[in-house]
Amino acid sequence: MNDSPLEVVAELILLLSIILIAAKIGGEISERYLKIPPVLGELVAGILISPFLLGGIHWFGGGAVFELPLGETQGLPVEPQLFFVAQVAAVILLFEAGLETDRQQFMKYVRPATAVAAGGVVLPFAMGFGATIMLGFASLESIQAMLPALFVGSIMTATSVGITARVLADIRRLDSPEGVTVLAGAVIDDVLGIIILAVIVGIAEEGSVTAGSVGLVFLKAVGFWLGLMIIGSLVSGYISRALLWFKSAGGALVLALALAFVAAGVAEIYFGLAMIIGAYTMGLALSGTELKHQIEVSMRAVNNFMVPIFFVVIGMQVDFTAFGASEDTTLAASIIFAVVLSVFAVISKVVGAGVPALFVGFNRRGATRIALGMLPRGEVALIIAGIGLASGVIGQDVFGVAIVMTIFTTILAPIFLIPAFRGGSGLRSEAEDEVEAD
Amino acid sequence: MNDSPLEVVAELILLLSIILIAAKIGGEISERYLKIPPVLGELVAGILISPFLLGGIHWFGGGAVFELPLGETQGLPVEPQLFFVAQVAAVILLFEAGLETDRQQFMKYVRPATAVAAGGVVLPFAMGFGATIMLGFASLESIQAMLPALFVGSIMTATSVGITARVLADIRRLDSPEGVTVLAGAVIDDVLGIIILAVIVGIAEEGSVTAGSVGLVFLKAVGFWLGLMIIGSLVSGYISRALLWFKSAGGALVLALALAFVAAGVAEIYFGLAMIIGAYTMGLALSGTELKHQIEVSMRAVNNFMVPIFFVVIGMQVDFTAFGASEDTTLAASIIFAVVLSVFAVISKVVGAGVPALFVGFNRRGATRIALGMLPRGEVALIIAGIGLASGVIGQDVFGVAIVMTIFTTILAPIFLIPAFRGGSGLRSEAEDEVEAD
Repeated sequence: MNDSPLEVVAELILLLSIILIAAKIGGEISERYLKIPPVLGELVAGILISPFLLGGIHWFGGGAVFELPLGETQGLPVEPQLFFVAQVAAVILLFEAGLETDRQQFMKYVRPATAVAAGGVVLPFAMGFGATIMLGFASLESIQAMLPALFVGSIMTATSVGITARVLADIRRLDSPEGVTVLAGAVIDDVLGIIILAVIVGIAEEGSVTAGSVGLVFLKAVGFWLGLMIIGSLVSGYISRALLWFKSAGGALVLALALAFVAAGVAEIYFGLAMIIGAYTMGLALSGTELKHQIEVSMRAVNNFMVPIFFVVIGMQVDFTAFGASEDTTLAASIIFAVVLSVFAVISKVVGAGVPALFVGFNRRGATRIALGMLPRGEVALIIAGIGLASGVIGQDVFGVAIVMTIFTTILAPIFLIPAFRGGSGLRSEAEDEVEAD
Repeated sequence: MNDSPLEVVAELILLLSIILIAAKIGGEISERYLKIPPVLGELVAGILISPFLLGGIHWFGGGAVFELPLGETQGLPVEPQLFFVAQVAAVILLFEAGLETDRQQFMKYVRPATAVAAGGVVLPFAMGFGATIMLGFASLESIQAMLPALFVGSIMTATSVGITARVLADIRRLDSPEGVTVLAGAVIDDVLGIIILAVIVGIAEEGSVTAGSVGLVFLKAVGFWLGLMIIGSLVSGYISRALLWFKSAGGALVLALALAFVAAGVAEIYFGLAMIIGAYTMGLALSGTELKHQIEVSMRAVNNFMVPIFFVVIGMQVDFTAFGASEDTTLAASIIFAVVLSVFAVISKVVGAGVPALFVGFNRRGATRIALGMLPRGEVALIIAGIGLASGVIGQDVFGVAIVMTIFTTILAPIFLIPAFRGGSGLRSEAEDEVEAD
């Protein structure tokens, strides 16, 4: 590859076109022939064109289509430019999910969401930790020997709400009690997740952590989120009017997106929260404003263009060859670990998130929907696993196992989400009735 | 800056939000208060937030907002990720310009456009070459001593059609005879420009060039363009139907953009043409199809979001401090050179492109419009100057001078384009009448 900046851009724009074409072919096959959400076809398209499969083949004797920039970019399977575009797409997706959520509705379901998120963090962590110890990939001898198990536990707690948000948007259920609970649950899950990760990284680096440093992480995360929600709600009317004052083409749209980007960047850099949580919260703060109605249509066009890039790039992160690549453990042990962890991942989230839901106003149908919505680990788990691999805490074997678990939950969730959302209300009979289509 | 991939993305998404907000404030002030095209406000906003001005200040004792990644990225004032997004935006802009052009109209004006482009290349080259020699920044002693003058000449030939296309789109004159002639002229200009650059780079590297290698460059450039136009026109109906077969949300839009990206990437990598020329040609090939009408609205939303990024980033490339930074020449000599070159740049394009226009069917009004449309050198000149600087053929002094000339023509053109397009037809009386609004 030549180094002239414009030639680099040209190579990348060709790769971007491949990503877009793959996304649309995968999405169309899913929707038209398989009657499943397009996001699944996009994920599979990403897996197929990844550097680990078709994209890695040296076609016609030339170089690989998608060169592996591994190492340089810490395990990213795509160039930083494309990764950036994909992440911006995720931010836009969650901003729109926030915009389309009813804030009153959201507040009403924060309490059930807290129960769901807590259960969906504690049980997966415990089962991930247990499985790693049981199968001999870590031991209880010392805190250092425990580290891989702690990492696997924290990978298990991840919730990738992007996939669920997309599926619920596809079937227009983002605003259902279950949808709102899942999105609110993902916010709380993320706060809990960064605390766990902070503790484990602290242990890995220092050998210990203090209650004070954990408390600080907690206060920062909760403070950002509550602050943005409260201030955002108070001033959203003014923001809406200020943005609608702009008359130049696309002014309100672009500025709304800029606010989402600010929230996303600040959340990640200064508060340790995921970018998509910042963007979602900003969307939530601006939901119900006049601005939302004005930008709805153009927002959808930007979404249609950007969002498939994110899901194809997630698919591209899937590396089946990472599995069983270690020298320390046998392939058989890795396969057993992968199967056990995948099954545990499903059970722990379904029970951990589903059972609390039964106690906070949902019937079994509703609890199942919520549990399935919290199931996909997606890019969140991949990123935590990447941190573990890069820091040397886990090896290629555990990394491969974590990836199999992630693929499994990520692909399973949307397949079962659609049928789960058929039928009547997910609320217990004493809760309000809802008109349910379908 | 932390190296975790997500933190890098978060930093960049904050910079992107600054770019978008600056774009919209600059655009709004231009349109609402100054009654000039928004693109000018976006350019000025870019200059203001560039690492060379506000963006370079270490606010509140922290680091600069826009770190200069100079060297690493060959003189780009922004990170590669943002440069990539900006270039994609330019590709989308020119694709839309192509889509909105009437193909019959375009073909009708290819002949006048050829005359305009040829004049607009020969005279600027000669005057740039002459000025550099005259003012002692190069000499005629040897071919090596002549190189800076040859480079300045080739920088002078550049035409950045993005700015003109944007202004004409803003005032809805993209499809006027003058608009079509400028766009077609830019295509031919680009073909001529890459031939000149190929010759000069050949001289700089080898000391000489052969007629065969120049012929090859010519055949490749013309062949690509003609091939895409002819094949594209023949199969555009099928492409349109194929893309409209896709029913998933945004399918046709995304695939049309993917085709634009393919054309852009292939033009740059395999044929040495500018990406925007590939995208424009693809748009032209698909203009007048049902596809165009179907994607028009969503295309505009994507444009509104992306295109301002391009113009702000162009503005950010402007570095006033590069001017007079050399040790070889006095500041006074550089200033004189900059003034002379800027004046020559205007005269040479206006005369070089305008006079031929008078002989191919336009009246003085039409010729003026065309000449002004060909005036901005924009990012094309900046990139050629960057190649010259990186290869050591020109020093910081000549580079600074070239940049002043570029800013001058780039800012001047849209200021005069708007009033120039007021009034009646630009065609000579024997040419068809046109209904002219305003």
